[in-house]
Amino acid sequence: MSYQKPIKLGMVGGGNDAFIGAVHRIAARLDAQYDLVAGALSSTPDKARASGAALGLDPARTYDDFNAMAVAEAAREDGIDAVAIVTPNHMHYPAAKAFLEQGIHVLCDKPMTSTLEDAQALLEVAERAEALFVLTHNYTGYPMIRQARDMIASGDLGDIRVVQVEYPQDWLTEALENTGQKQAGWRTDPARSGAGGSIGDIGTHAFNLACFTTGLEVEKLSADLHSFVPGRQLDDNAHIMLRFAGGARGMLWCSQVAPGNENALKLRIYGSKGGLEWSQEDPNYLWSTPFGEPKRLLTRNGSGATQSAGRLSRIPGGHPEGYLEGFANIYSEAARAIRAFQANEPLPQDIHFPTVRDGVAGMQFISACVASNEDDSAWVTVQS
Amino acid sequence: MSYQKPIKLGMVGGGNDAFIGAVHRIAARLDAQYDLVAGALSSTPDKARASGAALGLDPARTYDDFNAMAVAEAAREDGIDAVAIVTPNHMHYPAAKAFLEQGIHVLCDKPMTSTLEDAQALLEVAERAEALFVLTHNYTGYPMIRQARDMIASGDLGDIRVVQVEYPQDWLTEALENTGQKQAGWRTDPARSGAGGSIGDIGTHAFNLACFTTGLEVEKLSADLHSFVPGRQLDDNAHIMLRFAGGARGMLWCSQVAPGNENALKLRIYGSKGGLEWSQEDPNYLWSTPFGEPKRLLTRNGSGATQSAGRLSRIPGGHPEGYLEGFANIYSEAARAIRAFQANEPLPQDIHFPTVRDGVAGMQFISACVASNEDDSAWVTVQS
Amino acid sequence: MSYQKPIKLGMVGGGNDAFIGAVHRIAARLDAQYDLVAGALSSTPDKARASGAALGLDPARTYDDFNAMAVAEAAREDGIDAVAIVTPNHMHYPAAKAFLEQGIHVLCDKPMTSTLEDAQALLEVAERAEALFVLTHNYTGYPMIRQARDMIASGDLGDIRVVQVEYPQDWLTEALENTGQKQAGWRTDPARSGAGGSIGDIGTHAFNLACFTTGLEVEKLSADLHSFVPGRQLDDNAHIMLRFAGGARGMLWCSQVAPGNENALKLRIYGSKGGLEWSQEDPNYLWSTPFGEPKRLLTRNGSGATQSAGRLSRIPGGHPEGYLEGFANIYSEAARAIRAFQANEPLPQDIHFPTVRDGVAGMQFISACVASNEDDSAWVTVQS
Amino acid sequence: MSYQKPIKLGMVGGGNDAFIGAVHRIAARLDAQYDLVAGALSSTPDKARASGAALGLDPARTYDDFNAMAVAEAAREDGIDAVAIVTPNHMHYPAAKAFLEQGIHVLCDKPMTSTLEDAQALLEVAERAEALFVLTHNYTGYPMIRQARDMIASGDLGDIRVVQVEYPQDWLTEALENTGQKQAGWRTDPARSGAGGSIGDIGTHAFNLACFTTGLEVEKLSADLHSFVPGRQLDDNAHIMLRFAGGARGMLWCSQVAPGNENALKLRIYGSKGGLEWSQEDPNYLWSTPFGEPKRLLTRNGSGATQSAGRLSRIPGGHPEGYLEGFANIYSEAARAIRAFQANEPLPQDIHFPTVRDGVAGMQFISACVASNEDDSAWVTVQS
Repeated sequence: MSYQKPIKLGMVGGGNDAFIGAVHRIAARLDAQYDLVAGALSSTPDKARASGAALGLDPARTYDDFNAMAVAEAAREDGIDAVAIVTPNHMHYPAAKAFLEQGIHVLCDKPMTSTLEDAQALLEVAERAEALFVLTHNYTGYPMIRQARDMIASGDLGDIRVVQVEYPQDWLTEALENTGQKQAGWRTDPARSGAGGSIGDIGTHAFNLACFTTGLEVEKLSADLHSFVPGRQLDDNAHIMLRFAGGARGMLWCSQVAPGNENALKLRIYGSKGGLEWSQEDPNYLWSTPFGEPKRLLTRNGSGATQSAGRLSRIPGGHPEGYLEGFANIYSEAARAIRAFQANEPLPQDIHFPTVRDGVAGMQFISACVASNEDDSAWVTVQS
Repeated sequence: MSYQKPIKLGMVGGGNDAFIGAVHRIAARLDAQYDLVAGALSSTPDKARASGAALGLDPARTYDDFNAMAVAEAAREDGIDAVAIVTPNHMHYPAAKAFLEQGIHVLCDKPMTSTLEDAQALLEVAERAEALFVLTHNYTGYPMIRQARDMIASGDLGDIRVVQVEYPQDWLTEALENTGQKQAGWRTDPARSGAGGSIGDIGTHAFNLACFTTGLEVEKLSADLHSFVPGRQLDDNAHIMLRFAGGARGMLWCSQVAPGNENALKLRIYGSKGGLEWSQEDPNYLWSTPFGEPKRLLTRNGSGATQSAGRLSRIPGGHPEGYLEGFANIYSEAARAIRAFQANEPLPQDIHFPTVRDGVAGMQFISACVASNEDDSAWVTVQS
Repeated sequence: MSYQKPIKLGMVGGGNDAFIGAVHRIAARLDAQYDLVAGALSSTPDKARASGAALGLDPARTYDDFNAMAVAEAAREDGIDAVAIVTPNHMHYPAAKAFLEQGIHVLCDKPMTSTLEDAQALLEVAERAEALFVLTHNYTGYPMIRQARDMIASGDLGDIRVVQVEYPQDWLTEALENTGQKQAGWRTDPARSGAGGSIGDIGTHAFNLACFTTGLEVEKLSADLHSFVPGRQLDDNAHIMLRFAGGARGMLWCSQVAPGNENALKLRIYGSKGGLEWSQEDPNYLWSTPFGEPKRLLTRNGSGATQSAGRLSRIPGGHPEGYLEGFANIYSEAARAIRAFQANEPLPQDIHFPTVRDGVAGMQFISACVASNEDDSAWVTVQS
Repeated sequence: MSYQKPIKLGMVGGGNDAFIGAVHRIAARLDAQYDLVAGALSSTPDKARASGAALGLDPARTYDDFNAMAVAEAAREDGIDAVAIVTPNHMHYPAAKAFLEQGIHVLCDKPMTSTLEDAQALLEVAERAEALFVLTHNYTGYPMIRQARDMIASGDLGDIRVVQVEYPQDWLTEALENTGQKQAGWRTDPARSGAGGSIGDIGTHAFNLACFTTGLEVEKLSADLHSFVPGRQLDDNAHIMLRFAGGARGMLWCSQVAPGNENALKLRIYGSKGGLEWSQEDPNYLWSTPFGEPKRLLTRNGSGATQSAGRLSRIPGGHPEGYLEGFANIYSEAARAIRAFQANEPLPQDIHFPTVRDGVAGMQFISACVASNEDDSAWVTVQS
């Protein structure tokens, strides 16, 4: 493999104390595909400056306004090629728009926006932009998820019948948002998060993962949303029944009030010929259960690994990879895409990463959940 | 403990090849509380005779008609005290009625009947009978389920918020009923099973277990039933959303087309102070997850066992007990109740076993699922 | 299957408070192959009487002297066919001798005796007796152990290379024997247990299980025994290296001072073509790991079950069987053997149960461990 | 936290196809503490050049002779601060010596050398050098190992009694070294690996981990080494009994012929007050088993995490970290040490990383194993 210069990366959001900004920076760095060279890490000038300095950024490329940053970087000869957007949800749209319109590639955290309107507007912006838009639904980057997707695509499970996906957490079991904790604050605030609480924060991940892995679209859903903690404005628990195009049925449960669950995202898929089960907290394993045969425990890069699972692994089976490696796979796949784009070549066929359309689908999912819930859990069509 | 003579037991159904009859016989025998002395093991005279002989029954007490058996046994000085009913569902009601009306205690397999009408009729019969009616929802007999019930009743979990219960199997992934397999035959036949397929066969277990353990009743449900195998008349997969009295919400999934699942009944309960998780296939464990503390793995009869879990264990922790022991606990609790009844004493306060009211609730659950499903998954009140 | 009258069973030891006596009684009863009709449950007359009454035994067949019992029962027309011996170790030999010499079959708890001399004497007695001797190394009765034995015998693992067996417990972490606890009392007392502490109580189980499953004999061992609790006379932890005939090597660890372990007997076997792993606390599973292929989780009576595993199962996969069922398999296999013996027929070829020779091997194991430990862990030949 | 310029890093070994070189590079990069700027990636000039180019190194700083590299880099104003040595074992000593003598810090893969003599010579070199020597026993970098170490050091387990450590793999079940596979080639070759096969490659990891975590030293060992694959010169399986200073006893098993095991390093430690269990393949969990209390499953950065486990975590519990993150912890701790050294400050008190003394201990372990094995598994003192 010949050497390729790192892609020059900027970041919007992700200043001191932000959780997800640090994750994006590690993901970008892990495979040596990006150099972080600029940032609008905060809209508060002091904090932007301090955060930039803490990361060793050139003060001249430390901004407190992402619009200014987009313009300035686009004008520099050594300007950034791509930007990571890691702000609260309501800022995703204007920030993404600013960079895409300058021809700067965007890697944006999920959910894509805080409203469906913003999502649809961003779709238009992205489709006419001279740049790529990548949504960091990082769980799709886990090698065993790629293996599951391959196995389903090649018919190992037969016709898909049942999809059970869940994402329980427990960190909002009590009213953490009233303690001043920053993460809890914006994630339970409709003004910054949008109409979805748990369904936006983690339900969209579960929804995206189920669709990505099966290759199926959800046609209709019936949702029962609830907020168990007194005073909380957004849902902290959601029960959702799913009907997929083609006839599969499913359930999605997400919760932030389920004590004992940290990030217990779990996906189970059953077809006419077999099943698959995967858990995010133990991501190096994939249960494969062909009907009428013994259960098999596949391991990342172990016996029975598919080509795509192997390609996205760095080390042999038995040496666990985790969340950061899965996240880095999104970044590194995006790097391949950006390089192809820069070279005016078609995207490599084996690349899969979440796009602006997945982002719209996620916002449609949130909207449909809210609409169904308000209509006594009636079946609601998920637009597409 | 002083010696108590075994209770004289009869059996209706359970001839050669029947699965559940043999289970009841072992459960009755395990703690030496019953002697099987009579039976109407089949309605086919030859088969009834042969099955009785294979069990060493007195030919004079081998019947081919349960009505005749009920009358004859009631007339004998050494007649049976109790009868186990293990026929297909549609025969439960007439058989139970015949024995209850003779003052013979009944231990009946689930679901209690094949129609809600029969269930309500049986309720009346049972309430005016001079005998006990015990429904063998055997999963409630597992010691760690008793421990979970105790912990919830004593407030360890705080207010119950979320109840996730599921019972996936895979044995009907293909059209086994077309091969002449007897179990599959009657369980997929509305005439013998009633209106519920998977919801009757295993959904009622899941429903009963969730209610028994939490002490909560389901007020409303929204159901999406489906039959995936072409030609199958009854549901083989069901997705159900639950709303409990008092505000808890939940989900129930049962399936007989989920490859890789044998009898994967699983119950998870989350409250404002903590959670519990239990799996039937590994029944000697109970996860206890008090919010903000490390997860604890409680073991049957191990450190932290409650009194009732200990009372229903025969051997120390680390030596696993299983399905038959849990089933036997229902029989042995029933024996305690029968002896108290015979002695004209009140039931011991620490006894819990499923009753005719649980049987009616199970049939109401099936009816509500069918009604909701026919009404596009509308929320339907579960009568009670 | 035609009906067979239960075998008439007596019991020596196993009065009130004894743990293992109750286990033997359930094991004998579970498959309806035995009726308990006589007993010398204690050598203390009052206790013997009370214990017999609590079990509903005929007072005329309640003894306080096993020699008297052996003579009296042999003389009765309806005398016992077989006897279960469940006393502390040092009484096994005289009791077994008394019954064998009367032509009464013996089912004896392990270790077989308290000294190697007694074991060798019992071997002679058993070989010239007109009765069978069965040693209840109950773990060999688990269906998945039978499956493992079958798979190894049929060459699935290739040449066996490495055998790792361990049996950690934690109940003697503190000096329980000083509190008056009866089980701890005799098990840590050389006069009643013999020269082995943990190696006798649980090490012999591990040793027997490794040999039974692999079909291999241990040629030499090197042992490091230790007693960690101050004042304890017998070993409470043992590390042992093993060399098997044919070239396999192994390790055996047993401990009664390993906090967090209840009865964590575990067996792992590796050959030139694959491996197997089994844990007593989760006995319905068997990991099969053919080299170069994905790991498979075999379940009791599930897909891939062998004939012998299926024959010793009562219920389908996914409904767990446990310790008592495994123990009952030893009793029920013994019943088949006794019936063949009574009918003057050869033993069925598919029967396997531990015999007096396994008992001698167990005592040789203890002796070799003690000898090696006293000789600075030198390799000691295990006689055979 | 204020920004700190990356440490300038070189690498010896680790050219194309090498497994461990890539791991070291990721580990160095993960926390942005190092920049790789120079390398002698191969001793074959062409391969050295090509490998350097593939990594984007300045051709002027791409060497094919580590001695020349040490001298040249030491002479540059922008010369490397530290070097990673990732060659086969026999080159570790001369390479480390070359850099240490130039005052360049060394991060060296394990085992430290191929002979005990080299190890002792390197100890002397390191002790008089003006530079640090860090041995990358990477498993000590896992956060839950740090937590285990903390808990033991603070007395949670009481007196340590039993230490069970094992590291089974299966990749050498067949004669892979005869197929031309490079990793298998040098690891089974005494000339390049030294006297230890599995004991050197993975046994030293297990040994180091047990000592690091417990804080105990091994006084004596008794070893049974074997090579199961015909023609293999070095051990591929080892059974070792351990006696620790202070009275604890233990067992170490390592194997490269145990089918079904990828990198199943597992550590179990039992004391008078409780136990701990940890598995490398599921490294985000730590079982804590205080005697007489329910078992607890501690999670990385979850409830009950200690300060040091938290400090070495990047993301919250439930989002798994893995092998690369653990490896990076060694690099990042080394970076803290190097910066303190450069600033002429004492090492931070909370830093722990494996040093040259651990490397010597590892070689003493190998020597003692070989000596014991040659003396019929006699107990051999491990020098220290």
